[in-house]
Amino acid sequence: MNIEQDFLEGKKSALAKLQKAQKEKKVDEGVLPILFIINESDDYYTTSSCYGRIVLLEIPNIGDKKAAKFLGKWHRIIDVDELFVAARKAKRGLIWLLSQSPIIHVTTKTNELADRLLKTAIACGFKNSGIKSLGNKIVVEICSTERLDAPVGKDGVLFCNKQHLELLTDISNEILKKSTQKLKKFEKNLGKVLSTHKTTNN
Amino acid sequence: MNIEQDFLEGKKSALAKLQKAQKEKKVDEGVLPILFIINESDDYYTTSSCYGRIVLLEIPNIGDKKAAKFLGKWHRIIDVDELFVAARKAKRGLIWLLSQSPIIHVTTKTNELADRLLKTAIACGFKNSGIKSLGNKIVVEICSTERLDAPVGKDGVLFCNKQHLELLTDISNEILKKSTQKLKKFEKNLGKVLSTHKTTNN
Repeated sequence: MNIEQDFLEGKKSALAKLQKAQKEKKVDEGVLPILFIINESDDYYTTSSCYGRIVLLEIPNIGDKKAAKFLGKWHRIIDVDELFVAARKAKRGLIWLLSQSPIIHVTTKTNELADRLLKTAIACGFKNSGIKSLGNKIVVEICSTERLDAPVGKDGVLFCNKQHLELLTDISNEILKKSTQKLKKFEKNLGKVLSTHKTTNN
Repeated sequence: MNIEQDFLEGKKSALAKLQKAQKEKKVDEGVLPILFIINESDDYYTTSSCYGRIVLLEIPNIGDKKAAKFLGKWHRIIDVDELFVAARKAKRGLIWLLSQSPIIHVTTKTNELADRLLKTAIACGFKNSGIKSLGNKIVVEICSTERLDAPVGKDGVLFCNKQHLELLTDISNEILKKSTQKLKKFEKNLGKVLSTHKTTNN
């Protein structure tokens, strides 16, 4: 197969997976409009995405991410009491609170298209974006720098008092709100960039 | 100027800046061997670097990074008491503890060389690496995923008790140790990749 065929086959397979995931409610709804815009273009397709989330995680041994267990996972702003409730499930190992900004992986047809998408993402505030692979499969990762990665307890016990956990909740929510603003800006700009590009090529 | 000339001019200027920074002791010593290996190759040059660090930061207003103030900054493992001492300088705004893994920016001559460097970095554990720009100036960012970004207090007051701050110190140190291991692996592999490349081209 040549690169063009590889791209078309890859897109077909990625879109089928996305459709299946959508039916099973496994795709974050907030990110869907952006996925649609990208996948409508002949030059790009998405392979994975997350709208951004707040996570309470239990990691039995340092660095052993495979054994990590979700105590709580929210794709929306949360209340501090939800963290206390989720933390009750903790048993052994470190408890981390994470607030993660959106992440989208996009395959592109050419290096130039990858660079164009990357520059648009960075201009919309997704400053941690980068091209993860060139060559046969060109992949752009779109993501932001804002994040919170805080160890908050160990072996079933939260080390934070309420005041501290409230502060962590506020900041986690703030990160999620900022992410939503950036996604909206990206959606708007992406529409312009991709449609301009289509017109130019027609 | 053509791209080749741009690259040579850019390299000359970057090396002069590096030399000046070295004289002023502004370059992290631990990362120097890697910078030397990269800059010895005709195909690459470094433009910025950090060995990895633990930072206690004060941010007067959320998101206002420009106004952020270092309460403490260490390119080595630390003791919990150093955090307590540094925190005494805090006055107004959020106090964050950060443990950051190494970061190196490298300019390359061609897209293929960028992809080769990126794949080597990822194989050595720098999984957050990516190409930040293609076109006239090709820039690879080498960095890792391990990090700690934890709000630990507000308006001059630490919200963590000693047990919690000890846990945060242990994990921050762990991240720094992991980074050192990865840098060593990268140094070893980089030597092989770049020398192989030089031989092939001669």
